[in-house]
Amino acid sequence: VTPGFRYLRRVQFAETDVAGVVHFSWLFRYMEEAEHALWRAAGLSVAPRGAEIGWPRVAASFDFRAPLRFEDEFAVVVRGAQATRRTIRFDFLVERGEEIIGSGSLTAACVRRAPDGGMQAADAPADIVARILAVATPPA
Amino acid sequence: VTPGFRYLRRVQFAETDVAGVVHFSWLFRYMEEAEHALWRAAGLSVAPRGAEIGWPRVAASFDFRAPLRFEDEFAVVVRGAQATRRTIRFDFLVERGEEIIGSGSLTAACVRRAPDGGMQAADAPADIVARILAVATPPA
Amino acid sequence: VTPGFRYLRRVQFAETDVAGVVHFSWLFRYMEEAEHALWRAAGLSVAPRGAEIGWPRVAASFDFRAPLRFEDEFAVVVRGAQATRRTIRFDFLVERGEEIIGSGSLTAACVRRAPDGGMQAADAPADIVARILAVATPPA
Amino acid sequence: VTPGFRYLRRVQFAETDVAGVVHFSWLFRYMEEAEHALWRAAGLSVAPRGAEIGWPRVAASFDFRAPLRFEDEFAVVVRGAQATRRTIRFDFLVERGEEIIGSGSLTAACVRRAPDGGMQAADAPADIVARILAVATPPA
Repeated sequence: VTPGFRYLRRVQFAETDVAGVVHFSWLFRYMEEAEHALWRAAGLSVAPRGAEIGWPRVAASFDFRAPLRFEDEFAVVVRGAQATRRTIRFDFLVERGEEIIGSGSLTAACVRRAPDGGMQAADAPADIVARILAVATPPA
Repeated sequence: VTPGFRYLRRVQFAETDVAGVVHFSWLFRYMEEAEHALWRAAGLSVAPRGAEIGWPRVAASFDFRAPLRFEDEFAVVVRGAQATRRTIRFDFLVERGEEIIGSGSLTAACVRRAPDGGMQAADAPADIVARILAVATPPA
Repeated sequence: VTPGFRYLRRVQFAETDVAGVVHFSWLFRYMEEAEHALWRAAGLSVAPRGAEIGWPRVAASFDFRAPLRFEDEFAVVVRGAQATRRTIRFDFLVERGEEIIGSGSLTAACVRRAPDGGMQAADAPADIVARILAVATPPA
Repeated sequence: VTPGFRYLRRVQFAETDVAGVVHFSWLFRYMEEAEHALWRAAGLSVAPRGAEIGWPRVAASFDFRAPLRFEDEFAVVVRGAQATRRTIRFDFLVERGEEIIGSGSLTAACVRRAPDGGMQAADAPADIVARILAVATPPA
């Protein structure tokens, strides 16, 4: 079993496509669901109501090895996370039992909402980063 | 050809499911896309940036007659609209050429954003309703 | 607590929209997820691999009372089901704690795959219907 | 204007999220929609009914520079494509007017459907690849 924070999920019908497998775009949503579950496991929310900061994704990638199908049960494993002053990058492995479905990463950047509704890059609060990394980083 | 405001669309791959046809939930999005195109045809937006009022859906239904498939071209026809003091109801027919795919309706209610982020029922502005009905109601 | 088969769910980020609430189309997917969980609870799958019959939706409706928001936990309750020779109709209530989010229904029709890839209406197998109704119908 | 095959699109309401912008997962669907439009421009379909070969995605990535918002009109530009014996990689730029929204790529692999419903890697048919590259590769 791959070490790391694990998010368990089952494939829903609406996530499949005419090729008979999960549409590739869902792997990005699965990764995000796992990341947000990790925020909750750290006692946080990625988007508390009325928050002044937010965490839009600035990069996302996935490499597909095997398809998922309707009703498959699988795990999204957060294998690690790395922070810079303004971003957190999460690395994922998706597994169905012992089989690797694929691997990918998401990078979220901290932004502050501007009065006009826009977003400005902001430093990531140190306490938030520390709590996320504590859950996301497997102990040595 | 069914009279009414017409919104033309093509089925995208991600909208299909393992049964080989468009997932039923997409018909609700197709109806909404057509409704929003109608707002634009009336010189309006259903959700202008910073708007104090909004139009959440309070009822939605669809009856399915025939399936849509990948790359099909189809039309969502707004057959009519009816307003009450606080709601607008739109009736739709979805057609692929001469074939009827199904019919349905959406009812949107006017709400005003409360300071706490919640929504309160509000009277629909008369000028907005008049412009919507002018586009949505086929001339007698 | 409303009696009936219960499916528990949490709102995911991708299910929200710019109005700050769950997009209305997701309530239809939530109902379907609950229905498919009920099939599993009955020892069945709505779409086993290689199946000759399928269950497309022929009608769907929902009435919205209150919005769901990001990370809300809620229950989709299957309040009952009714069968005809070729269809099964499921009735749902969506609840967040004691609060009613809305109610709706889905009607699925039994079809047999034709050799050309099309679908033909078919009688619903009696044993499948009996097992579904046993789970979906609260005891008197 | 960036040279390449252009696919024009407008942001739909259901594609936004509670942060007020397009959910990041949609950029992957926008790229795929553009790719499939390119197949049509080449006189082909990525998934003709009854086809024995298919083109699942084996890699996908996107780097986000600026957010898209409800009703924005934008272009997905296919900047180029490269083929190997079994794959085609497409590179994309997403633009709103002169502003760059982001860039990404999709790699599709040719597979042949096995009798058991699975997929096996297959050589990409030379005529298909030639027609795709002719549309995807801007003339020097």
